[in-house]
Amino acid sequence: MIKVFVNGYGTIGKRVADAVSLQRDMEVSGVLKMKPDYIAASASTKYPLFTLSENVQAFRDAGLVARPMDKGIAESDIIIDCSPGGKGEGESTGVVNKRVYQNLGKKAIFQGGEKADIGISFVAQCNFEKAILADYVRVVSCNTTGLSRTLGALRGFGIERVLATMIRRGPDPADIKTGPVNAIVPETKVPSHHGPDVQTVIDIPIQTFAIIVPTTLMHLHTIAVDFKNDVSRDGVIGAFRKATRVRLVNSKSGIKSTAEVMELARELKRGRSDMYEIVVWEDSVNVKGKTLFYIQAVHQESDVVPENIDAVRAMFNLMGREQSIAETNRALGIAF
Amino acid sequence: MIKVFVNGYGTIGKRVADAVSLQRDMEVSGVLKMKPDYIAASASTKYPLFTLSENVQAFRDAGLVARPMDKGIAESDIIIDCSPGGKGEGESTGVVNKRVYQNLGKKAIFQGGEKADIGISFVAQCNFEKAILADYVRVVSCNTTGLSRTLGALRGFGIERVLATMIRRGPDPADIKTGPVNAIVPETKVPSHHGPDVQTVIDIPIQTFAIIVPTTLMHLHTIAVDFKNDVSRDGVIGAFRKATRVRLVNSKSGIKSTAEVMELARELKRGRSDMYEIVVWEDSVNVKGKTLFYIQAVHQESDVVPENIDAVRAMFNLMGREQSIAETNRALGIAF
Amino acid sequence: MIKVFVNGYGTIGKRVADAVSLQRDMEVSGVLKMKPDYIAASASTKYPLFTLSENVQAFRDAGLVARPMDKGIAESDIIIDCSPGGKGEGESTGVVNKRVYQNLGKKAIFQGGEKADIGISFVAQCNFEKAILADYVRVVSCNTTGLSRTLGALRGFGIERVLATMIRRGPDPADIKTGPVNAIVPETKVPSHHGPDVQTVIDIPIQTFAIIVPTTLMHLHTIAVDFKNDVSRDGVIGAFRKATRVRLVNSKSGIKSTAEVMELARELKRGRSDMYEIVVWEDSVNVKGKTLFYIQAVHQESDVVPENIDAVRAMFNLMGREQSIAETNRALGIAF
Amino acid sequence: MIKVFVNGYGTIGKRVADAVSLQRDMEVSGVLKMKPDYIAASASTKYPLFTLSENVQAFRDAGLVARPMDKGIAESDIIIDCSPGGKGEGESTGVVNKRVYQNLGKKAIFQGGEKADIGISFVAQCNFEKAILADYVRVVSCNTTGLSRTLGALRGFGIERVLATMIRRGPDPADIKTGPVNAIVPETKVPSHHGPDVQTVIDIPIQTFAIIVPTTLMHLHTIAVDFKNDVSRDGVIGAFRKATRVRLVNSKSGIKSTAEVMELARELKRGRSDMYEIVVWEDSVNVKGKTLFYIQAVHQESDVVPENIDAVRAMFNLMGREQSIAETNRALGIAF
Repeated sequence: MIKVFVNGYGTIGKRVADAVSLQRDMEVSGVLKMKPDYIAASASTKYPLFTLSENVQAFRDAGLVARPMDKGIAESDIIIDCSPGGKGEGESTGVVNKRVYQNLGKKAIFQGGEKADIGISFVAQCNFEKAILADYVRVVSCNTTGLSRTLGALRGFGIERVLATMIRRGPDPADIKTGPVNAIVPETKVPSHHGPDVQTVIDIPIQTFAIIVPTTLMHLHTIAVDFKNDVSRDGVIGAFRKATRVRLVNSKSGIKSTAEVMELARELKRGRSDMYEIVVWEDSVNVKGKTLFYIQAVHQESDVVPENIDAVRAMFNLMGREQSIAETNRALGIAF
Repeated sequence: MIKVFVNGYGTIGKRVADAVSLQRDMEVSGVLKMKPDYIAASASTKYPLFTLSENVQAFRDAGLVARPMDKGIAESDIIIDCSPGGKGEGESTGVVNKRVYQNLGKKAIFQGGEKADIGISFVAQCNFEKAILADYVRVVSCNTTGLSRTLGALRGFGIERVLATMIRRGPDPADIKTGPVNAIVPETKVPSHHGPDVQTVIDIPIQTFAIIVPTTLMHLHTIAVDFKNDVSRDGVIGAFRKATRVRLVNSKSGIKSTAEVMELARELKRGRSDMYEIVVWEDSVNVKGKTLFYIQAVHQESDVVPENIDAVRAMFNLMGREQSIAETNRALGIAF
Repeated sequence: MIKVFVNGYGTIGKRVADAVSLQRDMEVSGVLKMKPDYIAASASTKYPLFTLSENVQAFRDAGLVARPMDKGIAESDIIIDCSPGGKGEGESTGVVNKRVYQNLGKKAIFQGGEKADIGISFVAQCNFEKAILADYVRVVSCNTTGLSRTLGALRGFGIERVLATMIRRGPDPADIKTGPVNAIVPETKVPSHHGPDVQTVIDIPIQTFAIIVPTTLMHLHTIAVDFKNDVSRDGVIGAFRKATRVRLVNSKSGIKSTAEVMELARELKRGRSDMYEIVVWEDSVNVKGKTLFYIQAVHQESDVVPENIDAVRAMFNLMGREQSIAETNRALGIAF
Repeated sequence: MIKVFVNGYGTIGKRVADAVSLQRDMEVSGVLKMKPDYIAASASTKYPLFTLSENVQAFRDAGLVARPMDKGIAESDIIIDCSPGGKGEGESTGVVNKRVYQNLGKKAIFQGGEKADIGISFVAQCNFEKAILADYVRVVSCNTTGLSRTLGALRGFGIERVLATMIRRGPDPADIKTGPVNAIVPETKVPSHHGPDVQTVIDIPIQTFAIIVPTTLMHLHTIAVDFKNDVSRDGVIGAFRKATRVRLVNSKSGIKSTAEVMELARELKRGRSDMYEIVVWEDSVNVKGKTLFYIQAVHQESDVVPENIDAVRAMFNLMGREQSIAETNRALGIAF
């Protein structure tokens, strides 16, 4: 049993911890929470709770037992670092943490908010093998994971160019401080940084726009792919069907927006009503000459969760790619 | 095993079906869907599917087997009618359906969108006994249920007057057609119809405002209660603690809005991430002289679900109030 | 003085009427309103009011004088038809109206919601000459106008291909019935109909995605243009500067979204705080090889208003293109 | 001509400056902007621009001329301080500024974000006389102004108790950073601070709830008033009609929400499409026994603007209450 410490129990961290706890070959040795809030109270019913030394008393005052973080790290085999990604000039918490992990000789997984040089950029179905026995892996961001999964499935057709617009949710559902309430906010740095980030996983020419809109549920991508040769719509749909963690839906069945995708996730009765798969509208898939068009939705809260599990297995070489993906999918209720 | 037919598999119906299926003394004999959409496909994996005779072929075309509705009703002991409530002038579907149920000699439960005279208005913890062996019961609306649960818990203190403003979500999460996107929409009929609706359950003087705002998650109520005698804050909080299906939260723990309430529901790992309880902010409870102030949130999609289960038990006199509530709560994961 | 009758006094119609009233060579002979609401009351203070014969009494009951529509049309030289565009199967109101206008021998201008064959598709700076002495002109939709203005300005560089994603507002600001409140809604017909609509104005290869998001203010377009030859960023910006009704803004000056664009419009102190110009973020303009990227915002309520004025002038051959545009701009407060 | 310096050119400040510039007995001697953004550029076309000494160079770099603030203050008769109100523990900018004004012997007006002791709390139609020849006046907040205007009009009936729920917009329209996007956020301090703030203007018993919702346009208040004696609906409506800066609308005319109120403001062709009046839904006004119910909307961006003008006149004793209000209303286009 690999002992996994989850450093940071926010949107991603709490899902990763739950996913780890569902596997047969790993367990949660502890989770780090900074504040003794309602999420900490919930975590305390499931996992050993840790915090910074200076916060132990605050947890006690809130009726919660949290041990100092270093204890938890020392007792673990690997840390999944879900601290908030770097913003602005200084070092991110992840970079600071990495030095701690290195000093203790611990392997660690970081999330997509970190810069690419913190570890091997990872999407299980695209480059599992690169992470085998690696010490530091970066599970790329929700958007990069989404683009890598579907574009990765199309690499065999010979991608010449990809142009995508990412229409991103403003805040996550439980973040009430962040806007916008009634505006469309473009990233005016064009092409945005997301294209080069995809290239850390799969080597394709890709350029992206990034736009923020007033919704909390999911991101949505419009994607145009130029191929070197002719492709057929059926061929593309077949490739998506064969790809793991890609789910085809059809607006004719009533799934007309990100809202119904999230409603579908509630039907699936997964924890937290998550949608781990990248959702492609089958009726949006269209080919004109050598250009493919399609639209997909990305559940920013959860699509990277299975990647974190597979990364652990690769880093300890517990099993091969296909087996790990199958094992993770089974545990999380992903049909394929 | 009481055989329960769920007529209408929308927001409420699908939850009621799932709740019935979790009980030990009842089972879902069938559910009615009008359209063969993605929700029908999901239902077909769990329940016998029925539809109107004229829609059977459409279901078949969509790869789904749905039998004609009358078969399903004939084979059942009781119908939980979750058809859309009456709007405008004509008869509601529920009223039309009731005649069918009467002709077949079947008991039926209706939802709060129907007029009060369709059956006994019901909130389990307030008037379970009135529904014992009744043929027709109306589980009142989400808002009326919410007001009845907390105000019902305060009746012992001698309520002289209640004034409430209900700030209602616009559409449900998966309804993308309905607004408003950026406006506050008042019901200019003041007092609104909700006060008299509460009075079909508990006999208290109450007047209400109803306002619609651009959110999908929950309703929120601001409530001021004048008592005949002095009450203490502790007394009120004690009464809320003793009341079933009322959950106290505190903004100091990080639950500052309806968004974090829904996030808390996801932590609870219930089906569809629902919050069956009425959520009262403990730090909003305040007493000034003989007036009590408090704020509560109501999950419009799910708070009436346990009432439907208890109503079935009352109508067949399967067990008493306390036992039924305990049984329902256990099955749905409601702590108290 | 050309007598202009505005048939339909909604979002576009009321703006067109106000714009006509600001010109030196035309006047509003009447406006048609269907319902005696607050907008009708406002219109009645400015323009002769008309309605359908059967609605005259309803207006009278509301204290408003409205004459039957046919009187207004008979007394006018041209009708600007701002009836709601065609939806679904049957004939649109505009098509029905066109027969009336034809029978009376009246010229007419239609809006972009009508099918392309109703008249000459028109954007003043792109094809003013085509409308000279025409009987029926169609001012194209807000989105098509927006794309035509900026892409039209780039035609000289040799456009090889355009790929655009249009992120559209859900409802207009005063429409509280339409959603979505919290979802991203893709048009799954890809490429969308907007590309061919642009081609009714300027002959360029263009393919588009159309997405709807929960905001009321403006549409936003992400645009990638492949050129036959190298272009420079300065060349593109120069072309935009030379184009009328295109306004460059910079996020560094604080205009970071459609919200600040609308705030800027309020600074300009135009009627209804409108933004007639297509707003291009100068800092989004970027050239990589032979591909240009840029982002623009379109004020769906008002960008087509100046086109309606110029179309009137063309159809009566009152003056040439440059002179008409300058005259319209001056009257509406458009700097260039 | 009174020389007015506007210290802070944000949401309120820029409107106050424009309003001052429309009066016959005062003029804008300067405005202070902190950042050389697009609003500063717009201001520079209308008013002498000032900034902090340390920011002068940044303005120059942006192509704008801004002189150091103290120059502007020294040359003025009165300062209207529109700096952001106090937040958290320390002194607000307004309090710090007041010491500067005092040292220079200048009168000053502050806004409602400041604490009540900074000056005389002021709503023109309620207590104009209190501000005559005063040195420091505080124009109360948008919500307090709204409540004071309509409740002030009802004082003659003998108010025994007021209970109000204020449903507040989240951010202002051009603020894209602040949420909530999809939540209802209660102020759990109940009663909220707004009741005591009203009492600094009119002496009535009032208790309030404050709730924040995801909209940018206006606040909305639900208000219940208990009177000592019977009142009639007609009497109340008559009192509202007689009150200045209170506008009655009716949902039957199509004004069903804050969105149509803002659309009405655009019809009025005022600067920035503002609604200075408190808007009461006439069809929401209802009397049950000795209790009055009504609903009103408050345009948070602009309702306090006329109060700032009247305060200047009172503080220099330029004219009496009725005359000043009439003069301000005429200049701003307020019918009554």
